[in-house]
Amino acid sequence: MEVVVSIQDIRERVKSFRENQLTVGFVPTMGALHEGHLSLVKKAKGENDKTVVSIFVNPLQFGKNEDFRQYPRTFDNDCELLSKEGVDIVFHPKASEMYPEGFCTLVIPEHLEDKLCGKLRPGHFRGVAVIVLKLFNLVKPDVAYFGQKDFQQTVIIKRIVSDLNLDVNISVLPTIRNKEGLALSSRNAYLSETEREGALCLYKALAKAQSTINAGIINTKEIVQEMEKIIRNCKSATIDYVSVVNPETLEEVPRVSSGDVATLAVRIGKTRLIDNIICVSTI
Amino acid sequence: MEVVVSIQDIRERVKSFRENQLTVGFVPTMGALHEGHLSLVKKAKGENDKTVVSIFVNPLQFGKNEDFRQYPRTFDNDCELLSKEGVDIVFHPKASEMYPEGFCTLVIPEHLEDKLCGKLRPGHFRGVAVIVLKLFNLVKPDVAYFGQKDFQQTVIIKRIVSDLNLDVNISVLPTIRNKEGLALSSRNAYLSETEREGALCLYKALAKAQSTINAGIINTKEIVQEMEKIIRNCKSATIDYVSVVNPETLEEVPRVSSGDVATLAVRIGKTRLIDNIICVSTI
Repeated sequence: MEVVVSIQDIRERVKSFRENQLTVGFVPTMGALHEGHLSLVKKAKGENDKTVVSIFVNPLQFGKNEDFRQYPRTFDNDCELLSKEGVDIVFHPKASEMYPEGFCTLVIPEHLEDKLCGKLRPGHFRGVAVIVLKLFNLVKPDVAYFGQKDFQQTVIIKRIVSDLNLDVNISVLPTIRNKEGLALSSRNAYLSETEREGALCLYKALAKAQSTINAGIINTKEIVQEMEKIIRNCKSATIDYVSVVNPETLEEVPRVSSGDVATLAVRIGKTRLIDNIICVSTI
Repeated sequence: MEVVVSIQDIRERVKSFRENQLTVGFVPTMGALHEGHLSLVKKAKGENDKTVVSIFVNPLQFGKNEDFRQYPRTFDNDCELLSKEGVDIVFHPKASEMYPEGFCTLVIPEHLEDKLCGKLRPGHFRGVAVIVLKLFNLVKPDVAYFGQKDFQQTVIIKRIVSDLNLDVNISVLPTIRNKEGLALSSRNAYLSETEREGALCLYKALAKAQSTINAGIINTKEIVQEMEKIIRNCKSATIDYVSVVNPETLEEVPRVSSGDVATLAVRIGKTRLIDNIICVSTI
Protein backbone atom coordinates (compact mmCIF):
# COMPACT_ATOMS: atom_id res chain seq x y z
CA MET A 1 0.00 0.00 0.00
CA GLU A 2 1.31 3.41 -0.96
CA VAL A 3 0.55 6.67 0.83
CA VAL A 4 0.33 9.47 -1.75
CA VAL A 5 0.34 13.07 -0.56
CA SER A 6 0.76 15.32 -3.59
CA ILE A 7 -1.67 16.09 -6.39
CA GLN A 8 1.01 15.42 -8.98
CA ASP A 9 1.68 11.95 -7.58
CA ILE A 10 -1.96 10.89 -7.41
CA ARG A 11 -2.44 12.06 -10.99
CA GLU A 12 0.51 9.93 -12.12
CA ARG A 13 -0.70 6.80 -10.31
CA VAL A 14 -4.22 7.20 -11.68
CA LYS A 15 -2.88 7.79 -15.18
CA SER A 16 -0.95 4.54 -15.09
CA PHE A 17 -4.07 2.68 -13.86
CA ARG A 18 -5.99 4.13 -16.80
CA GLU A 19 -3.29 3.29 -19.30
CA ASN A 20 -3.36 -0.29 -18.10
CA GLN A 21 -7.18 -0.40 -18.37
CA LEU A 22 -7.52 -1.06 -14.64
CA THR A 23 -10.78 -0.08 -12.95
CA VAL A 24 -10.60 2.08 -9.83
CA GLY A 25 -12.84 1.91 -6.76
CA PHE A 26 -12.68 4.94 -4.47
CA VAL A 27 -13.66 5.48 -0.86
CA PRO A 28 -13.38 9.12 0.28
CA THR A 29 -13.08 9.44 4.08
CA MET A 30 -12.05 11.85 6.79
CA GLY A 31 -10.14 9.05 8.55
CA ALA A 32 -10.91 7.83 12.09
CA LEU A 33 -11.95 4.67 10.31
CA HIS A 34 -14.42 2.16 11.69
CA GLU A 35 -16.20 -0.93 10.39
CA GLY A 36 -18.58 1.29 8.40
CA HIS A 37 -15.71 2.63 6.31
CA LEU A 38 -14.15 -0.81 6.07
CA SER A 39 -17.37 -2.25 4.64
CA LEU A 40 -17.05 0.29 1.82
CA VAL A 41 -13.40 -0.59 1.30
CA LYS A 42 -14.15 -4.32 1.14
CA LYS A 43 -16.85 -3.70 -1.45
CA ALA A 44 -14.57 -1.43 -3.51
CA LYS A 45 -11.83 -4.05 -3.35
CA GLY A 46 -14.18 -6.79 -4.52
CA GLU A 47 -15.53 -4.82 -7.47
CA ASN A 48 -12.45 -3.10 -8.92
CA ASP A 49 -8.87 -3.77 -9.99
CA LYS A 50 -7.47 -0.99 -7.81
CA THR A 51 -8.75 0.57 -4.60
CA VAL A 52 -7.99 4.13 -3.53
CA VAL A 53 -9.01 5.53 -0.13
CA SER A 54 -8.64 9.22 0.65
CA ILE A 55 -8.13 10.49 4.18
CA PHE A 56 -8.68 14.24 4.39
CA VAL A 57 -10.36 16.19 7.15
CA ASN A 58 -11.90 18.80 4.87
CA PRO A 59 -11.91 22.21 6.57
CA LEU A 60 -14.54 23.58 4.14
CA GLN A 61 -17.30 21.33 5.46
CA PHE A 62 -16.95 22.39 9.10
CA GLY A 63 -18.74 25.44 10.44
CA LYS A 64 -16.95 28.02 12.57
CA ASN A 65 -18.19 26.57 15.85
CA GLU A 66 -17.93 22.95 14.79
CA ASP A 67 -15.40 20.26 15.64
CA PHE A 68 -12.77 20.66 12.88
CA ARG A 69 -9.90 20.91 15.34
CA GLN A 70 -10.99 18.14 17.66
CA TYR A 71 -12.23 15.78 14.93
CA PRO A 72 -10.49 12.44 15.66
CA ARG A 73 -7.32 11.94 13.64
CA THR A 74 -5.93 8.41 13.78
CA PHE A 75 -3.86 8.28 10.61
CA ASP A 76 -1.38 5.55 11.56
CA ASN A 77 -4.11 3.25 12.80
CA ASP A 78 -6.21 4.01 9.69
CA CYS A 79 -3.31 3.05 7.43
CA GLU A 80 -2.82 -0.20 9.32
CA LEU A 81 -6.49 -1.11 8.84
CA LEU A 82 -6.42 -0.19 5.14
CA SER A 83 -3.22 -2.07 4.52
CA LYS A 84 -4.81 -5.20 6.01
CA GLU A 85 -7.73 -4.77 3.59
CA GLY A 86 -5.32 -4.74 0.66
CA VAL A 87 -5.96 -1.12 -0.36
CA ASP A 88 -3.59 0.03 -3.12
CA ILE A 89 -3.35 3.76 -2.44
CA VAL A 90 -4.15 6.03 0.49
CA PHE A 91 -4.45 9.60 -0.77
CA HIS A 92 -3.71 11.98 2.10
CA PRO A 93 -3.43 15.49 0.65
CA LYS A 94 -2.53 18.69 2.45
CA ALA A 95 -5.20 21.38 2.90
CA SER A 96 -2.73 23.96 1.56
CA GLU A 97 -2.49 22.07 -1.73
CA MET A 98 -6.21 21.35 -1.97
CA TYR A 99 -7.18 24.95 -1.22
CA PRO A 100 -4.34 27.19 -2.40
CA GLU A 101 -4.47 30.97 -2.20
CA GLY A 102 -7.01 32.39 -4.64
CA PHE A 103 -9.28 29.34 -4.46
CA CYS A 104 -12.78 30.68 -5.03
CA THR A 105 -15.03 28.12 -6.72
CA LEU A 106 -18.28 27.25 -4.97
CA VAL A 107 -20.31 24.18 -5.86
CA ILE A 108 -23.80 24.57 -4.51
CA PRO A 109 -26.48 21.90 -4.48
CA GLU A 110 -29.31 24.41 -4.47
CA HIS A 111 -32.60 23.38 -2.82
CA LEU A 112 -30.87 20.31 -1.33
CA GLU A 113 -28.20 22.02 0.77
CA ASP A 114 -30.52 23.96 3.07
CA LYS A 115 -32.71 21.05 4.17
CA LEU A 116 -32.33 18.64 7.14
CA CYS A 117 -28.69 18.81 8.36
CA GLY A 118 -28.07 21.77 6.06
CA LYS A 119 -30.46 23.94 8.05
CA LEU A 120 -28.31 23.57 11.13
CA ARG A 121 -24.96 23.36 9.37
CA PRO A 122 -24.99 26.21 6.82
CA GLY A 123 -22.24 25.77 4.24
CA HIS A 124 -21.59 22.14 5.19
CA PHE A 125 -22.84 20.54 2.00
CA ARG A 126 -21.19 22.97 -0.36
CA GLY A 127 -17.97 22.08 1.46
CA VAL A 128 -18.72 18.40 0.87
CA ALA A 129 -19.67 19.06 -2.76
CA VAL A 130 -16.44 20.82 -3.63
CA ILE A 131 -14.10 18.31 -1.97
CA VAL A 132 -15.89 15.31 -3.49
CA LEU A 133 -15.73 16.91 -6.95
CA LYS A 134 -12.02 17.65 -6.51
CA LEU A 135 -11.29 14.12 -5.31
CA PHE A 136 -13.31 12.59 -8.17
CA ASN A 137 -11.38 14.69 -10.68
CA LEU A 138 -8.07 13.61 -9.17
CA VAL A 139 -8.79 9.92 -8.58
CA LYS A 140 -11.09 9.41 -11.61
CA PRO A 141 -12.80 6.40 -10.09
CA ASP A 142 -15.16 4.07 -11.91
CA VAL A 143 -17.16 3.66 -8.71
CA ALA A 144 -17.15 5.71 -5.51
CA TYR A 145 -18.56 4.24 -2.28
CA PHE A 146 -20.52 6.05 0.43
CA GLY A 147 -22.38 4.95 3.54
CA GLN A 148 -26.16 5.28 3.81
CA LYS A 149 -25.63 6.78 7.28
CA ASP A 150 -24.73 10.10 5.63
CA PHE A 151 -28.00 10.04 3.72
CA GLN A 152 -28.28 13.70 2.73
CA GLN A 153 -24.66 13.64 1.58
CA THR A 154 -25.36 10.69 -0.71
CA VAL A 155 -28.41 12.41 -2.21
CA ILE A 156 -26.42 15.56 -2.89
CA ILE A 157 -23.45 13.74 -4.37
CA LYS A 158 -25.68 11.71 -6.69
CA ARG A 159 -27.38 14.94 -7.78
CA ILE A 160 -24.11 16.74 -8.51
CA VAL A 161 -22.66 13.76 -10.38
CA SER A 162 -25.78 13.65 -12.52
CA ASP A 163 -26.07 17.43 -13.00
CA LEU A 164 -22.42 17.85 -13.97
CA ASN A 165 -22.29 14.63 -16.06
CA LEU A 166 -19.45 13.09 -14.10
CA ASP A 167 -18.51 9.66 -15.35
CA VAL A 168 -18.55 7.88 -11.98
CA ASN A 169 -20.99 5.45 -10.44
CA ILE A 170 -22.08 6.18 -6.89
CA SER A 171 -22.58 3.13 -4.73
CA VAL A 172 -24.38 3.66 -1.42
CA LEU A 173 -23.97 0.81 1.08
CA PRO A 174 -25.98 0.02 4.20
CA THR A 175 -25.22 1.67 7.52
CA ILE A 176 -23.13 -0.51 9.81
CA ARG A 177 -24.39 -0.65 13.42
CA ASN A 178 -23.07 -2.13 16.63
CA LYS A 179 -25.04 -5.02 18.07
CA GLU A 180 -27.31 -2.63 19.98
CA GLY A 181 -28.19 -0.73 16.81
CA LEU A 182 -26.02 2.38 17.19
CA ALA A 183 -24.81 3.50 13.76
CA LEU A 184 -21.02 3.51 13.62
CA SER A 185 -19.60 7.03 13.37
CA SER A 186 -16.21 8.57 13.99
CA ARG A 187 -18.00 11.01 16.28
CA ASN A 188 -19.13 8.17 18.60
CA ALA A 189 -15.63 8.55 20.05
CA TYR A 190 -16.86 11.75 21.74
CA LEU A 191 -19.54 9.88 23.76
CA SER A 192 -19.18 9.03 27.44
CA GLU A 193 -20.39 5.59 28.52
CA THR A 194 -23.73 7.02 29.69
CA GLU A 195 -24.12 9.01 26.49
CA ARG A 196 -23.42 5.93 24.41
CA GLU A 197 -26.38 4.33 26.17
CA GLY A 198 -28.53 7.40 25.45
CA ALA A 199 -27.43 7.43 21.81
CA LEU A 200 -29.39 4.21 21.26
CA CYS A 201 -32.54 6.35 21.13
CA LEU A 202 -31.70 7.28 17.53
CA TYR A 203 -32.03 3.75 16.26
CA LYS A 204 -34.93 3.01 18.58
CA ALA A 205 -36.81 5.96 17.09
CA LEU A 206 -36.09 4.75 13.55
CA ALA A 207 -37.22 1.23 14.45
CA LYS A 208 -40.38 2.78 15.87
CA ALA A 209 -40.97 4.57 12.56
CA GLN A 210 -40.89 1.25 10.73
CA SER A 211 -43.05 -0.56 13.28
CA THR A 212 -45.58 2.29 13.15
CA ILE A 213 -45.71 1.95 9.37
CA ASN A 214 -46.04 -1.82 9.78
CA ALA A 215 -49.04 -1.14 12.03
CA GLY A 216 -50.69 0.63 9.12
CA ILE A 217 -49.95 4.29 10.00
CA ILE A 218 -48.43 6.15 7.06
CA ASN A 219 -49.21 9.74 8.05
CA THR A 220 -45.79 11.34 8.49
CA LYS A 221 -46.85 13.66 11.33
CA GLU A 222 -48.04 10.73 13.41
CA ILE A 223 -44.90 8.73 12.68
CA VAL A 224 -42.66 11.67 13.58
CA GLN A 225 -44.58 12.16 16.84
CA GLU A 226 -43.95 8.53 17.78
CA MET A 227 -40.25 8.91 16.99
CA GLU A 228 -39.92 12.13 18.96
CA LYS A 229 -41.58 10.53 21.98
CA ILE A 230 -38.83 7.93 22.12
CA ILE A 231 -36.06 10.49 21.85
CA ARG A 232 -37.59 12.71 24.54
CA ASN A 233 -37.44 9.75 26.91
CA CYS A 234 -33.66 10.02 26.75
CA LYS A 235 -32.47 12.78 29.14
CA SER A 236 -29.21 13.55 27.34
CA ALA A 237 -30.89 13.91 23.93
CA THR A 238 -31.86 17.12 22.11
CA ILE A 239 -33.62 16.85 18.77
CA ASP A 240 -32.20 18.78 15.79
CA TYR A 241 -34.74 17.32 13.41
CA VAL A 242 -36.87 14.23 12.84
CA SER A 243 -38.48 13.76 9.43
CA VAL A 244 -39.55 11.35 6.72
CA VAL A 245 -38.49 12.60 3.31
CA ASN A 246 -38.46 11.83 -0.39
CA PRO A 247 -35.07 10.23 -1.22
CA GLU A 248 -34.37 12.58 -4.13
CA THR A 249 -35.89 15.93 -3.25
CA LEU A 250 -35.39 15.66 0.55
CA GLU A 251 -38.84 17.21 0.96
CA GLU A 252 -40.92 15.85 3.83
CA VAL A 253 -43.61 13.56 2.46
CA PRO A 254 -47.18 13.84 3.80
CA ARG A 255 -47.65 10.05 3.64
CA VAL A 256 -44.90 7.47 3.70
CA SER A 257 -44.36 4.98 0.91
CA SER A 258 -41.58 2.47 0.33
CA GLY A 259 -38.24 4.11 -0.41
CA ASP A 260 -38.95 7.23 1.63
CA VAL A 261 -36.34 7.84 4.29
CA ALA A 262 -36.94 8.33 8.00
CA THR A 263 -34.05 10.50 9.10
CA LEU A 264 -32.98 12.35 12.22
CA ALA A 265 -30.25 14.36 13.87
CA VAL A 266 -30.00 14.32 17.63
CA ARG A 267 -27.50 15.86 19.99
CA ILE A 268 -26.41 13.57 22.80
CA GLY A 269 -24.76 15.94 25.24
CA LYS A 270 -22.51 17.97 22.95
CA THR A 271 -22.21 15.30 20.28
CA ARG A 272 -24.38 15.58 17.21
CA LEU A 273 -25.36 12.23 15.73
CA ILE A 274 -27.36 11.36 12.61
CA ASP A 275 -29.07 8.21 11.45
CA ASN A 276 -31.76 7.08 9.00
CA ILE A 277 -33.56 4.08 7.57
CA ILE A 278 -35.20 3.45 4.23
CA CYS A 279 -38.86 2.80 4.98
CA VAL A 280 -40.76 -0.21 3.73
CA SER A 281 -44.50 0.05 3.34
CA THR A 282 -46.83 -2.59 2.00
CA ILE A 283 -49.78 -0.20 1.85
CA MET B 1 -17.72 14.40 -39.53
CA GLU B 2 -20.39 13.06 -37.21
CA VAL B 3 -23.09 15.12 -35.53
CA VAL B 4 -23.74 13.68 -32.05
CA VAL B 5 -26.82 14.78 -30.16
CA SER B 6 -27.24 12.51 -27.13
CA ILE B 7 -25.17 12.29 -23.97
CA GLN B 8 -24.95 8.53 -24.29
CA ASP B 9 -23.54 8.78 -27.82
CA ILE B 10 -20.89 11.38 -26.98
CA ARG B 11 -19.80 9.26 -24.01
CA GLU B 12 -19.39 6.24 -26.28
CA ARG B 13 -17.37 8.13 -28.90
CA VAL B 14 -15.10 9.66 -26.25
CA LYS B 15 -14.63 6.28 -24.58
CA SER B 16 -13.44 4.73 -27.83
CA PHE B 17 -11.01 7.65 -28.37
CA ARG B 18 -9.62 7.05 -24.88
CA GLU B 19 -9.33 3.32 -25.36
CA ASN B 20 -7.33 3.93 -28.52
CA GLN B 21 -5.07 6.41 -26.68
CA LEU B 22 -6.15 9.24 -28.98
CA THR B 23 -5.85 12.81 -27.70
CA VAL B 24 -8.90 15.04 -27.91
CA GLY B 25 -9.00 18.77 -28.65
CA PHE B 26 -12.25 20.53 -27.81
CA VAL B 27 -13.78 23.82 -28.91
CA PRO B 28 -17.01 24.70 -27.08
CA THR B 29 -19.14 27.20 -29.02
CA MET B 30 -22.64 28.59 -29.25
CA GLY B 31 -22.53 28.27 -33.04
CA ALA B 32 -22.88 31.21 -35.44
CA LEU B 33 -19.28 30.44 -36.25
CA HIS B 34 -16.81 32.96 -37.63
CA GLU B 35 -13.06 33.05 -38.29
CA GLY B 36 -12.43 33.48 -34.57
CA HIS B 37 -13.97 30.09 -33.83
CA LEU B 38 -12.26 28.56 -36.84
CA SER B 39 -8.86 29.71 -35.62
CA LEU B 40 -9.52 27.68 -32.45
CA VAL B 41 -10.64 24.68 -34.49
CA LYS B 42 -7.53 24.81 -36.69
CA LYS B 43 -5.31 24.92 -33.62
CA ALA B 44 -7.20 22.03 -31.96
CA LYS B 45 -6.92 20.02 -35.16
CA GLY B 46 -3.17 20.64 -35.38
CA GLU B 47 -2.46 19.65 -31.78
CA ASN B 48 -4.69 16.59 -31.22
CA ASP B 49 -5.66 13.27 -32.76
CA LYS B 50 -9.37 14.05 -32.61
CA THR B 51 -11.26 17.34 -32.65
CA VAL B 52 -14.66 17.83 -31.04
CA VAL B 53 -16.66 21.06 -31.40
CA SER B 54 -19.81 21.64 -29.38
CA ILE B 55 -22.62 23.88 -30.61
CA PHE B 56 -25.04 24.70 -27.82
CA VAL B 57 -26.77 28.00 -27.14
CA ASN B 58 -26.73 27.67 -23.36
CA PRO B 59 -29.90 29.15 -21.85
CA LEU B 60 -28.31 29.39 -18.37
CA GLN B 61 -25.84 32.08 -19.40
CA PHE B 62 -28.44 34.49 -20.75
CA GLY B 63 -30.24 36.94 -18.49
CA LYS B 64 -34.00 37.39 -18.62
CA ASN B 65 -33.82 40.46 -20.83
CA GLU B 66 -30.93 39.24 -22.95
CA ASP B 67 -30.81 37.86 -26.48
CA PHE B 68 -31.25 34.10 -25.95
CA ARG B 69 -34.12 33.84 -28.41
CA GLN B 70 -32.66 36.03 -31.11
CA TYR B 71 -29.06 34.78 -30.74
CA PRO B 72 -27.99 33.83 -34.29
CA ARG B 73 -28.44 30.12 -35.04
CA THR B 74 -26.77 28.98 -38.26
CA PHE B 75 -26.34 25.26 -37.59
CA ASP B 76 -26.19 23.97 -41.18
CA ASN B 77 -23.67 26.58 -42.21
CA ASP B 78 -21.64 25.92 -39.05
CA CYS B 79 -21.49 22.21 -39.85
CA GLU B 80 -20.34 22.95 -43.37
CA LEU B 81 -17.50 25.11 -42.06
CA LEU B 82 -16.48 22.53 -39.46
CA SER B 83 -16.60 19.70 -41.95
CA LYS B 84 -14.22 21.60 -44.22
CA GLU B 85 -11.83 21.99 -41.30
CA GLY B 86 -11.81 18.22 -40.79
CA VAL B 87 -13.54 18.24 -37.40
CA ASP B 88 -14.36 14.71 -36.20
CA ILE B 89 -17.42 15.32 -34.04
CA VAL B 90 -19.93 18.12 -33.63
CA PHE B 91 -21.71 17.73 -30.29
CA HIS B 92 -25.10 19.42 -30.49
CA PRO B 93 -27.04 18.47 -27.35
CA LYS B 94 -30.60 19.37 -26.47
CA ALA B 95 -31.26 21.76 -23.60
CA SER B 96 -33.78 19.29 -22.18
CA GLU B 97 -31.07 16.64 -21.84
CA MET B 98 -28.43 19.03 -20.51
CA TYR B 99 -30.78 20.52 -17.91
CA PRO B 100 -33.36 17.86 -17.01
CA GLU B 101 -36.04 18.40 -14.39
CA GLY B 102 -34.55 18.58 -10.92
CA PHE B 103 -31.25 20.05 -12.13
CA CYS B 104 -30.03 22.21 -9.25
CA THR B 105 -26.24 22.40 -9.11
CA LEU B 106 -24.66 25.85 -9.16
CA VAL B 107 -20.99 26.39 -9.92
CA ILE B 108 -19.99 29.84 -8.77
CA PRO B 109 -16.68 31.54 -9.44
CA GLU B 110 -16.91 33.72 -6.34
CA HIS B 111 -15.15 37.13 -6.45
CA LEU B 112 -14.62 36.73 -10.23
CA GLU B 113 -18.26 36.48 -11.36
CA ASP B 114 -19.41 39.89 -10.15
CA LYS B 115 -16.70 41.97 -11.79
CA LEU B 116 -16.58 43.62 -15.26
CA CYS B 117 -19.23 41.94 -17.47
CA GLY B 118 -20.58 40.09 -14.44
CA LYS B 119 -21.72 43.37 -12.86
CA LEU B 120 -24.06 44.00 -15.77
CA ARG B 121 -24.91 40.39 -16.51
CA PRO B 122 -25.70 38.83 -13.13
CA GLY B 123 -25.72 35.03 -13.32
CA HIS B 124 -23.96 34.97 -16.70
CA PHE B 125 -20.68 33.46 -15.54
CA ARG B 126 -22.21 30.82 -13.33
CA GLY B 127 -24.16 29.77 -16.42
CA VAL B 128 -20.90 29.60 -18.35
CA ALA B 129 -19.18 27.75 -15.51
CA VAL B 130 -21.76 25.00 -15.28
CA ILE B 131 -22.03 24.34 -19.02
CA VAL B 132 -18.26 24.29 -19.50
CA LEU B 133 -17.87 21.85 -16.60
CA LYS B 134 -20.60 19.62 -18.02
CA LEU B 135 -19.07 19.67 -21.49
CA PHE B 136 -15.59 18.95 -20.12
CA ASN B 137 -16.96 15.97 -18.18
CA LEU B 138 -18.68 14.63 -21.28
CA VAL B 139 -15.97 15.27 -23.88
CA LYS B 140 -12.97 14.71 -21.56
CA PRO B 141 -10.63 16.75 -23.72
CA ASP B 142 -6.87 16.93 -23.29
CA VAL B 143 -6.98 20.57 -24.37
CA ALA B 144 -9.90 23.00 -24.64
CA TYR B 145 -9.60 26.15 -26.75
CA PHE B 146 -11.05 29.59 -26.03
CA GLY B 147 -10.69 33.02 -27.61
CA GLN B 148 -9.00 35.89 -25.77
CA LYS B 149 -11.94 38.09 -26.80
CA ASP B 150 -14.00 36.55 -24.01
CA PHE B 151 -11.31 37.48 -21.52
CA GLN B 152 -13.27 37.26 -18.27
CA GLN B 153 -14.66 33.90 -19.36
CA THR B 154 -11.15 32.54 -19.90
CA VAL B 155 -10.01 33.77 -16.48
CA ILE B 156 -12.99 32.13 -14.80
CA ILE B 157 -12.64 28.84 -16.66
CA LYS B 158 -8.94 28.63 -15.84
CA ARG B 159 -9.78 29.29 -12.18
CA ILE B 160 -12.48 26.63 -12.01
CA VAL B 161 -10.33 24.05 -13.80
CA SER B 162 -7.57 24.72 -11.29
CA ASP B 163 -9.85 24.86 -8.22
CA LEU B 164 -11.67 21.64 -9.10
CA ASN B 165 -8.52 19.83 -10.31
CA LEU B 166 -9.89 19.09 -13.75
CA ASP B 167 -7.40 17.30 -15.95
CA VAL B 168 -7.68 19.56 -18.99
CA ASN B 169 -5.35 22.18 -20.43
CA ILE B 170 -6.92 25.52 -21.29
CA SER B 171 -5.50 27.16 -24.38
CA VAL B 172 -6.42 30.81 -24.95
CA LEU B 173 -5.79 32.06 -28.49
CA PRO B 174 -5.59 35.63 -29.80
CA THR B 175 -8.69 37.58 -30.77
CA ILE B 176 -9.34 37.55 -34.49
CA ARG B 177 -10.22 40.99 -35.95
CA ASN B 178 -11.39 42.20 -39.31
CA LYS B 179 -8.96 44.38 -41.24
CA GLU B 180 -10.28 47.51 -39.52
CA GLY B 181 -9.67 46.05 -36.07
CA LEU B 182 -13.21 45.03 -35.08
CA ALA B 183 -13.07 41.84 -33.00
CA LEU B 184 -15.05 39.07 -34.66
CA SER B 185 -18.19 38.18 -32.69
CA SER B 186 -21.40 36.37 -33.51
CA ARG B 187 -23.20 39.44 -32.17
CA ASN B 188 -21.66 41.65 -34.91
CA ALA B 189 -24.49 40.24 -37.04
CA TYR B 190 -26.85 42.55 -35.10
CA LEU B 191 -25.03 45.72 -36.26
CA SER B 192 -26.31 48.01 -39.02
CA GLU B 193 -23.73 49.36 -41.46
CA THR B 194 -23.46 52.65 -39.55
CA GLU B 195 -23.18 50.80 -36.24
CA ARG B 196 -20.43 48.59 -37.63
CA GLU B 197 -18.52 51.81 -38.33
CA GLY B 198 -19.16 53.03 -34.80
CA ALA B 199 -18.10 49.70 -33.32
CA LEU B 200 -14.54 50.42 -34.41
CA CYS B 201 -14.27 52.71 -31.37
CA LEU B 202 -13.72 49.64 -29.15
CA TYR B 203 -10.47 48.70 -30.82
CA LYS B 204 -9.44 52.34 -31.26
CA ALA B 205 -9.82 52.83 -27.52
CA LEU B 206 -7.72 49.73 -26.82
CA ALA B 207 -5.05 50.87 -29.27
CA LYS B 208 -5.10 54.23 -27.48
CA ALA B 209 -4.51 52.43 -24.16
CA GLN B 210 -1.37 50.83 -25.55
CA SER B 211 -0.11 54.01 -27.22
CA THR B 212 -0.67 55.93 -23.97
CA ILE B 213 1.39 53.32 -22.13
CA ASN B 214 4.04 53.56 -24.87
CA ALA B 215 4.15 57.31 -24.22
CA GLY B 216 5.14 56.56 -20.62
CA ILE B 217 1.78 56.94 -18.86
CA ILE B 218 1.00 53.94 -16.67
CA ASN B 219 -1.57 55.46 -14.32
CA THR B 220 -4.75 53.49 -14.97
CA LYS B 221 -7.11 56.41 -14.35
CA GLU B 222 -5.37 58.50 -17.00
CA ILE B 223 -5.35 55.62 -19.47
CA VAL B 224 -9.04 54.90 -18.90
CA GLN B 225 -9.85 58.60 -19.43
CA GLU B 226 -8.07 58.55 -22.78
CA MET B 227 -9.97 55.42 -23.78
CA GLU B 228 -13.33 56.83 -22.72
CA LYS B 229 -12.71 60.00 -24.70
CA ILE B 230 -12.43 57.97 -27.88
CA ILE B 231 -15.60 56.03 -27.19
CA ARG B 232 -17.58 59.17 -26.36
CA ASN B 233 -16.66 60.51 -29.80
CA CYS B 234 -18.84 57.78 -31.26
CA LYS B 235 -22.50 58.84 -31.13
CA SER B 236 -23.99 55.33 -31.12
CA ALA B 237 -21.76 54.13 -28.27
CA THR B 238 -22.66 53.77 -24.58
CA ILE B 239 -19.97 52.63 -22.17
CA ASP B 240 -20.73 49.68 -19.88
CA TYR B 241 -17.21 49.65 -18.45
CA VAL B 242 -13.64 50.51 -19.35
CA SER B 243 -10.86 49.18 -17.12
CA VAL B 244 -7.33 47.84 -16.88
CA VAL B 245 -7.20 44.77 -14.66
CA ASN B 246 -4.98 42.08 -13.24
CA PRO B 247 -5.32 39.00 -15.49
CA GLU B 248 -5.99 36.61 -12.58
CA THR B 249 -7.94 38.57 -9.98
CA LEU B 250 -9.76 40.87 -12.44
CA GLU B 251 -9.16 43.72 -9.96
CA GLU B 252 -8.42 47.11 -11.52
CA VAL B 253 -4.70 47.85 -11.17
CA PRO B 254 -3.58 51.34 -10.06
CA ARG B 255 -0.60 51.27 -12.44
CA VAL B 256 -0.32 49.18 -15.56
CA SER B 257 2.42 46.63 -16.06
CA SER B 258 2.94 44.07 -18.82
CA GLY B 259 0.34 41.32 -18.80
CA ASP B 260 -2.43 43.49 -17.36
CA VAL B 261 -5.48 43.58 -19.55
CA ALA B 262 -7.22 46.67 -20.92
CA THR B 263 -10.83 45.59 -21.30
CA LEU B 264 -14.14 47.19 -22.15
CA ALA B 265 -17.79 46.59 -22.86
CA VAL B 266 -19.64 49.08 -25.02
CA ARG B 267 -23.16 49.13 -26.34
CA ILE B 268 -23.44 50.16 -29.97
CA GLY B 269 -27.11 50.91 -30.36
CA LYS B 270 -28.71 47.87 -28.74
CA THR B 271 -25.77 45.55 -29.35
CA ARG B 272 -23.38 44.94 -26.49
CA LEU B 273 -19.80 44.31 -27.62
CA ILE B 274 -16.67 43.44 -25.65
CA ASP B 275 -12.99 43.57 -26.46
CA ASN B 276 -9.61 43.64 -24.73
CA ILE B 277 -5.87 43.66 -25.24
CA ILE B 278 -3.00 42.40 -23.15
CA CYS B 279 -0.91 45.45 -22.32
CA VAL B 280 2.82 45.67 -22.90
CA SER B 281 4.86 48.06 -20.80
CA THR B 282 8.60 48.54 -20.88
CA ILE B 283 8.61 50.71 -17.75
